[in-house]
Amino acid sequence: MPQLDSDRLFPVEPKARDLARALYDGIKGLPILSPHGHTDPAWYAENQRFDDPAALFVTPDHYVFRMLISQGVRYEDLGVAPRDGGSYQTDPREVWQTFAQHYYLFRATPTRMWIDHALQHVFDIAEDLTPETAGSIYDQIEAALSQPSFRPRALYDRFGVEVVATTDSALDPLPHHKAIAASDWQGRVLPTYRPDAVIDPETAGFAENLGRLGELTGEDTNTWAGYLAAHRKRRADFIALGATATDHGAETPQTANLSENEAKSLFDRVQQDASPKDAALFRAQMLTEMARMSIDDGLIMQLHAGSARSHSTTINRRFGADKGFDIPIAVDWVNGLHPLLEAFGNDRRLRLILFTLDEATYTRELAPLAGAYPALRLGPAWWFFDSPEGMRRYREAVTETAGFYNTVGFNDDTRAFCSIPARHDVARRVDCAYLADLIMTGRLSETEAHEVAVDLAYTLAKKAYRL
Amino acid sequence: MPQLDSDRLFPVEPKARDLARALYDGIKGLPILSPHGHTDPAWYAENQRFDDPAALFVTPDHYVFRMLISQGVRYEDLGVAPRDGGSYQTDPREVWQTFAQHYYLFRATPTRMWIDHALQHVFDIAEDLTPETAGSIYDQIEAALSQPSFRPRALYDRFGVEVVATTDSALDPLPHHKAIAASDWQGRVLPTYRPDAVIDPETAGFAENLGRLGELTGEDTNTWAGYLAAHRKRRADFIALGATATDHGAETPQTANLSENEAKSLFDRVQQDASPKDAALFRAQMLTEMARMSIDDGLIMQLHAGSARSHSTTINRRFGADKGFDIPIAVDWVNGLHPLLEAFGNDRRLRLILFTLDEATYTRELAPLAGAYPALRLGPAWWFFDSPEGMRRYREAVTETAGFYNTVGFNDDTRAFCSIPARHDVARRVDCAYLADLIMTGRLSETEAHEVAVDLAYTLAKKAYRL
Amino acid sequence: MPQLDSDRLFPVEPKARDLARALYDGIKGLPILSPHGHTDPAWYAENQRFDDPAALFVTPDHYVFRMLISQGVRYEDLGVAPRDGGSYQTDPREVWQTFAQHYYLFRATPTRMWIDHALQHVFDIAEDLTPETAGSIYDQIEAALSQPSFRPRALYDRFGVEVVATTDSALDPLPHHKAIAASDWQGRVLPTYRPDAVIDPETAGFAENLGRLGELTGEDTNTWAGYLAAHRKRRADFIALGATATDHGAETPQTANLSENEAKSLFDRVQQDASPKDAALFRAQMLTEMARMSIDDGLIMQLHAGSARSHSTTINRRFGADKGFDIPIAVDWVNGLHPLLEAFGNDRRLRLILFTLDEATYTRELAPLAGAYPALRLGPAWWFFDSPEGMRRYREAVTETAGFYNTVGFNDDTRAFCSIPARHDVARRVDCAYLADLIMTGRLSETEAHEVAVDLAYTLAKKAYRL
Repeated sequence: MPQLDSDRLFPVEPKARDLARALYDGIKGLPILSPHGHTDPAWYAENQRFDDPAALFVTPDHYVFRMLISQGVRYEDLGVAPRDGGSYQTDPREVWQTFAQHYYLFRATPTRMWIDHALQHVFDIAEDLTPETAGSIYDQIEAALSQPSFRPRALYDRFGVEVVATTDSALDPLPHHKAIAASDWQGRVLPTYRPDAVIDPETAGFAENLGRLGELTGEDTNTWAGYLAAHRKRRADFIALGATATDHGAETPQTANLSENEAKSLFDRVQQDASPKDAALFRAQMLTEMARMSIDDGLIMQLHAGSARSHSTTINRRFGADKGFDIPIAVDWVNGLHPLLEAFGNDRRLRLILFTLDEATYTRELAPLAGAYPALRLGPAWWFFDSPEGMRRYREAVTETAGFYNTVGFNDDTRAFCSIPARHDVARRVDCAYLADLIMTGRLSETEAHEVAVDLAYTLAKKAYRL
Repeated sequence: MPQLDSDRLFPVEPKARDLARALYDGIKGLPILSPHGHTDPAWYAENQRFDDPAALFVTPDHYVFRMLISQGVRYEDLGVAPRDGGSYQTDPREVWQTFAQHYYLFRATPTRMWIDHALQHVFDIAEDLTPETAGSIYDQIEAALSQPSFRPRALYDRFGVEVVATTDSALDPLPHHKAIAASDWQGRVLPTYRPDAVIDPETAGFAENLGRLGELTGEDTNTWAGYLAAHRKRRADFIALGATATDHGAETPQTANLSENEAKSLFDRVQQDASPKDAALFRAQMLTEMARMSIDDGLIMQLHAGSARSHSTTINRRFGADKGFDIPIAVDWVNGLHPLLEAFGNDRRLRLILFTLDEATYTRELAPLAGAYPALRLGPAWWFFDSPEGMRRYREAVTETAGFYNTVGFNDDTRAFCSIPARHDVARRVDCAYLADLIMTGRLSETEAHEVAVDLAYTLAKKAYRL
Repeated sequence: MPQLDSDRLFPVEPKARDLARALYDGIKGLPILSPHGHTDPAWYAENQRFDDPAALFVTPDHYVFRMLISQGVRYEDLGVAPRDGGSYQTDPREVWQTFAQHYYLFRATPTRMWIDHALQHVFDIAEDLTPETAGSIYDQIEAALSQPSFRPRALYDRFGVEVVATTDSALDPLPHHKAIAASDWQGRVLPTYRPDAVIDPETAGFAENLGRLGELTGEDTNTWAGYLAAHRKRRADFIALGATATDHGAETPQTANLSENEAKSLFDRVQQDASPKDAALFRAQMLTEMARMSIDDGLIMQLHAGSARSHSTTINRRFGADKGFDIPIAVDWVNGLHPLLEAFGNDRRLRLILFTLDEATYTRELAPLAGAYPALRLGPAWWFFDSPEGMRRYREAVTETAGFYNTVGFNDDTRAFCSIPARHDVARRVDCAYLADLIMTGRLSETEAHEVAVDLAYTLAKKAYRL
């Protein structure tokens, strides 16, 4: 880990680099808007110290540890507990050492840049992370974590976060968000309505989940009307605690628009033993129902499609979900979204933000769709593409057809708290590099580029998510 | 709108930029060949003045207005008439103002570069287009349009057009092309045979269209033999007026090669109530029939595939076709073209030019196919990809496998007359930038690059379309 | 053909170029590891002189001649014999002249760079290849070929080859590899086990091939157990002669994991008249069987998927296979590999190297898969993408998700002996250019980049293929 270059990610040609630096200087201090992510609301509510360096950087982040797994490291040695109760490494110092031993695997990856950034800018560490320095760096991080200035709320302030959204189950009573609201802390931590557990009939415990949804809302969730009413109530609960958005993960972007009676009858069927076909149709229909509710209650709708979750059933069985085996697949947005768009695509009250892992759809489907339908916006480069090359491809693929103003700024989408400033910094730099090249090639004036830089770093997210 | 940079779209590195400029200087004055486009032949035949700035730049061009629609502007406010006779903005000055108000949406898009180019180079306007300058710029354009030097034929000459092809229905009696031929004007305006209306059984009025085809040709178009003969006659009519090409738009590149009897029986079926399957098979078969006729009469065959037309049926119902909702889909050229290529792919008398909106097929399918079959050529980056990044991706994806000489130069494909020089200028600049990078990286000599620049800007189109 | 630029393929910006040159200087002299290719083992065994310039550069290489075919040159004029015994050009000097006449078609293609490199660096030719110089260059090559220093073993040494793998049928008794082993020559020429002929029931002569496999191994290859045992024996034969890998070409990456009984019954069926479905299932099952054997005997498994072989049946019928008509198709690695990966994907004893012609799968499927499964590695940019732009796209698409260490270095995959140094040189230059850009943009330190450069040029292949 060399100390980070202050001109990193800027164009190579000197004049373009100067332009990028000037653009970046104009936005680097802007507050961070994080309208989509997976940090734990308990952190902000309880403001306890973070556990240890391994728990902060390695164990919970399948983005990170999958690379070590791919090279033959065992989950157990990374502190991931087997579900069968088998033994695993519980000494975080050992886990950290294993991580450092394999840190070279991350060369030229975004993970490497985020971690270097956090070590240097959050923990003020001057050494490179190597097997030799691992112990000393562990000690430095550990020492920092024990200080009040490294507790979540202090870091929230220090990172310049203006608002952070969490992602929360429709069944979550949101105690932490309530606690934050009741506290005198000024941070803004917004819940996001994520209803997969009560929308996907193939979820383990779907029936129980419906029951729980009924308890939470006082609705009869075994009837179609009651079930929809329960969604509406829960959405209202989220809104009362600041939510501005919902979030929907789907393997495919298939939607449906059944008649009232068909939907009712489908709902009856999936409560029994749902066939795969019915389950898929129900998920498809529920996306349209969610859009309908968004028109009513104003929640922004986010749709992430195209990931085959837990591709290795062996790993899922042994270690659980979110272990690095969510693999993208080809998707068809054009036909998939058609039913929903026929219903609401031209309704300016709906805002539906799309995220893809199939980059072939950027130019073929997503930019053309978002460049026409008033209800659509494009989410930023997502997941594996939350990276310098990925973001650059996104801009080059999307801008010429959909412009900047059908996009919604950056999402860090992270569960790693210390990576938030690093991720926003990468996005801001990549965007400034892109804008500098547009200036150099006569496609944008400098004045405009400065405006657009602010839009991409701040304003678009603020407006798109109604923050 | 800053005044356009004279080095726009050239590489950023100074030496590469110098090389690109030198290449561009060698070709910027070449005549414009426009072998594929959608300008109105009436313009050249009647040589009337253009209506007004909004009609020239905004209302007819769904390439342009879709961006405003996507951000919530209403069609009615852009002067697009609802089909139900509802009211809409009829004052072009108001339309122009709405357009200017949203002109920032086009930042970094090709539309912006074309319009800036036209305003500056065609209308000699020195101001940027903003809400504040909109009125004054409207007046300047309007004043220009009232002068003889801004009539179609004068602009044709001023733009340096050597030949322009229009796209014309197989049912068009071509009065304007006849009038041009009969006039003493020296411009070359060639019709292109576009037979969708009599080839797609799912077209509204298909039966009537067949009847009209029969009237035009004196053939019995209710028999397979008569129907084919009618095509041959109409193609000959087009050839007599200068046509060198046909044009075929298809949702998929599926072709078929049925036996005579199967085809005959299929034709009988689709004249009744065509099933979707039969309709698709008939379209597929007709591509092969058109190829067969091309071998006989020498017309170049163009195939544009992969656009789902009028994705929003709501918009189609309310405002008609070509309203910005034609959305690309994934296509399979390899299996789709197979029947046609088995029949004629190795026949050197056929020339079939392919255009795609699914960029994943550039390297995977199109360049490998065109790099093998003598009958195939690749059309330029098309539609949404008629843009700096799109063209660059095209060259980088295609050249290494298919070379330059399996491509056919540039098509402007436009219905916006004033964008013709702008579009060719963009293509020439992007190609020179690409060639300069090839020189800088030792992949092409300067001498060769100058030759290739001329080929890409002029010679390839001339030869490919037999102009 | 200008004399090759010593800075070719390096970045354009001067500082980046200096960095790339320095990286390249550190690796250009490394030995060549060629773990996958199609050179003829007889060359090394017999060490006869190469026939003539046309046979060396043109006739056997469908990579090369397909470009001329695509522009209307006849196979016969390139010295390719029709299968019906028809006449064809047998004078290599005439073939060479035809080739030179069309050499401009290769502008900006990798073929051009390889041939220029071979002419200059192997044959020390100072002129450009043009129609005018063709005769003189022919004479110079011919004169060289007649010298001992241009025989295969001498060139092997001069090229700095450390090891070269050939690709050999499972039915090949490997006489040349035996002869090399028995000789006192020190070159390492390793066979690679390619069992398509006894794995694909749709291969012409499949039943005979099984019989031949039985003869070679003394197993009853009409039983499932005997058939598998025969594979094991033949793999052992290959290993005894140095093989470290197997190679599998498949139209799709579909795998299967049937029960013992299902597999047995399927094997019985495909020995009769295999249905297309059974044939596909058998190929799918055999990939999993090969993986199982690899776990036992340690052979690295290579899978190349996604090429529709002999797309033009006309050309196949008239001139045979490998005539330039192998066309890529879209593939689904995620679902296709699932059965095999469920069985062995997490087994660290398996190493399965994947090659694709569907570049959309780099970021969508392959890098995510290889960045998770311990058994998977990614082969280099392959076939049409063994080119500067193709390699660059590969690095940019793959590295951020899978890192460098889930890739396996370069394969030349060639049947053109004299292109080996040229191809490795291109790969090394492109990688150094990529690394230089990473340094310039702060994503890698110079020290690391020098290490990675060695890894990409040498160490990764050495380790991945256990050379």
